[in-house]
Amino acid sequence: MKQVGMAMLLFASLCCAQESGDFQPAATNVWGAEYPRVDSAGRVQLRVKAPEAAKVKVNFWSGPKLDMVKQPDGFWTVTTPPLVPGLHYYTLMIDGAEVSDLNSHAFFGGSKHASAVEVPEPGSTYYSIQDVPHGQVREVWYYSKVTGTWRHALVYAPPNYDVQTNVRYPVLYLQHGGGEDETGWTKQGHANFILDNLIAAGSCKPMILVMAYGYARRAGQPAPDLTGKPFGSPEVMRAMQEMAAAFEDDVTQVLIPYIDSNFRTIPDRDHRAMAGLSMGGMQTFQVTFNHLDMFSYIGGFSGAAGPLVLGNQKLDVKTAFNGALADPAAFAKKVHLLWVGVGTEEPERMRAGLQTLHTSLLEANIQHVFYESPGTAHEWQTWRRDLKDFAPRLF
Amino acid sequence: MKQVGMAMLLFASLCCAQESGDFQPAATNVWGAEYPRVDSAGRVQLRVKAPEAAKVKVNFWSGPKLDMVKQPDGFWTVTTPPLVPGLHYYTLMIDGAEVSDLNSHAFFGGSKHASAVEVPEPGSTYYSIQDVPHGQVREVWYYSKVTGTWRHALVYAPPNYDVQTNVRYPVLYLQHGGGEDETGWTKQGHANFILDNLIAAGSCKPMILVMAYGYARRAGQPAPDLTGKPFGSPEVMRAMQEMAAAFEDDVTQVLIPYIDSNFRTIPDRDHRAMAGLSMGGMQTFQVTFNHLDMFSYIGGFSGAAGPLVLGNQKLDVKTAFNGALADPAAFAKKVHLLWVGVGTEEPERMRAGLQTLHTSLLEANIQHVFYESPGTAHEWQTWRRDLKDFAPRLF
Repeated sequence: MKQVGMAMLLFASLCCAQESGDFQPAATNVWGAEYPRVDSAGRVQLRVKAPEAAKVKVNFWSGPKLDMVKQPDGFWTVTTPPLVPGLHYYTLMIDGAEVSDLNSHAFFGGSKHASAVEVPEPGSTYYSIQDVPHGQVREVWYYSKVTGTWRHALVYAPPNYDVQTNVRYPVLYLQHGGGEDETGWTKQGHANFILDNLIAAGSCKPMILVMAYGYARRAGQPAPDLTGKPFGSPEVMRAMQEMAAAFEDDVTQVLIPYIDSNFRTIPDRDHRAMAGLSMGGMQTFQVTFNHLDMFSYIGGFSGAAGPLVLGNQKLDVKTAFNGALADPAAFAKKVHLLWVGVGTEEPERMRAGLQTLHTSLLEANIQHVFYESPGTAHEWQTWRRDLKDFAPRLF
Repeated sequence: MKQVGMAMLLFASLCCAQESGDFQPAATNVWGAEYPRVDSAGRVQLRVKAPEAAKVKVNFWSGPKLDMVKQPDGFWTVTTPPLVPGLHYYTLMIDGAEVSDLNSHAFFGGSKHASAVEVPEPGSTYYSIQDVPHGQVREVWYYSKVTGTWRHALVYAPPNYDVQTNVRYPVLYLQHGGGEDETGWTKQGHANFILDNLIAAGSCKPMILVMAYGYARRAGQPAPDLTGKPFGSPEVMRAMQEMAAAFEDDVTQVLIPYIDSNFRTIPDRDHRAMAGLSMGGMQTFQVTFNHLDMFSYIGGFSGAAGPLVLGNQKLDVKTAFNGALADPAAFAKKVHLLWVGVGTEEPERMRAGLQTLHTSLLEANIQHVFYESPGTAHEWQTWRRDLKDFAPRLF
């Protein structure tokens, strides 16, 4: 009888833990906000005040889209099914208006200050702040003759940068995705904490990270009028190519000289890497392959040349990137690392494109690393893991 | 006839310029957003998509609260009367839900990521980026034994900090207002550009700015439950005092030693200043008067001891701040600068409180500067001007 009682108590406590959840305010909330809350199963509870609204929905960009339920107190609530660990962008739809949740910190994505909820990965501390020496994340402003504007970039200076003033460092240029900006890699990705932790563990070399603003328009060039032009139309493709070319010139002609003049870098190709996620991966391939005199480490995180350029068509290694891959032996001698990654849960188009790139490189005997992040989608948990795998292979 | 024609043309162009306005996208917009737009008269046009909403309002926190008008295309629009120059916080009310405008960058105020529109001040360049050497704004993280948490601060290192590595600098600790955070002084206030421009003009000494997070709770202390307790109730006042005391300890016992260890400061009271706006002004008075061994320059921007402590009651200079003001000659010898400022358009309670403080100090022969910002309210244009007047008087 006693044992049955104990078992029932145990069952009751398990049962109730499952029913009520062990919900805690998310790490991504503003100070004092009780919602969103996350439980250990990865379920997220939202609560939003909209007393006169007729319909409120939540839209997780890489997750569920759910109707919220109006409560008698004028708040709308919902509990999601379990979400995979990572940072989940979301916005609300209040009577047809897309808005952010003011309980959440703002994360720049989708060309706006969106909301996000952090679902912790059990046991993973590599991207959170630890009791190790910390680098500084520095805001810098440089004038670009390419764009005719002041541009803002973030620079991670590794721990002790200000102490060991005779030491020079290699540099990783690290680019955000489409719709994001230069704040993404630290605010969403925690790139600074990832580097702090890797450096403290002796797993990667101390290095400088440069996170630039990935959009550019040439000085004097008006904004193209793309009203009514669909994605993929010649007008949109030309506008994107022009932006990509302006960005390439800004990085190679202005940003790199600025960084090399203002930080204690080792200013040569053997100590310069570039990587980026999604759109940033495509930019990385364009910038690095067009300037192999400047870069020797290349990383494409869920982007690279894959999805948009290839689809399911193989890469023609003889002609691609102005023939940079045509001679595998020469390429291997020149490029110390070619790294391509994708999450196993990314949309089929992404996975197929990167898988095809991997296969093409393999068949052409182009040395490279292909990394698949298990169980993660086209979101920041994939890119945090990418950086954790990529950075230790550099320099 | 020709002259009449010219005049009519001129009239027509003036007329049309007034009617249609010379509206331009605000500097505070996200990339590519056409709205909000501002004209040279300071009028602001907003445009927000909310096709199924029944009512949309815009609430400028220190300005008009206006109903927006639904257009046939599902967008809601409004044009404000002229607003005074400066940064105007606003939020939208969509069917009773307070939300931000996704066209605007996010500015942390009112304990949320709010929207804001910058109305330019004609001819004022002191707070915008200029072709002068720029300091860096550095994110740092320090562990506080007071709060038992990692805390984030922003540090402005003046131009050439990394070049002249034998130079040591004085430090100004600069605090945000209630509901804002450590990003306010750079994102909203442009403190870094103000300092860059003053330093370039030779108008102020190169200095380090430290912008700390102004909220603190002692390690192990649970969040107080203030549900249903009105502002001014004993419970809320006690909670505020506890937070203020924890903040004071964090600044004096943890932050200052951290900054002095990690930056090339001149670590003495003659080279350490503190100032803050609104709540930050009150914190400044508490921290500096309780620690005159650590500070010799004191600035209260629209805050100080005034509004909350005094109302219309005079300051008892004999007993206030543990008697620090009791002996004016001794005080003048010890404190190099006591600076108090207020905007002429601030709410009556604020103006009265600061005016009373000024009068009390005057009558007690306490040397100080009293600065009134003409035509500005309890908002950032006042505090930008405050910093521009205050910084040149330091060190």
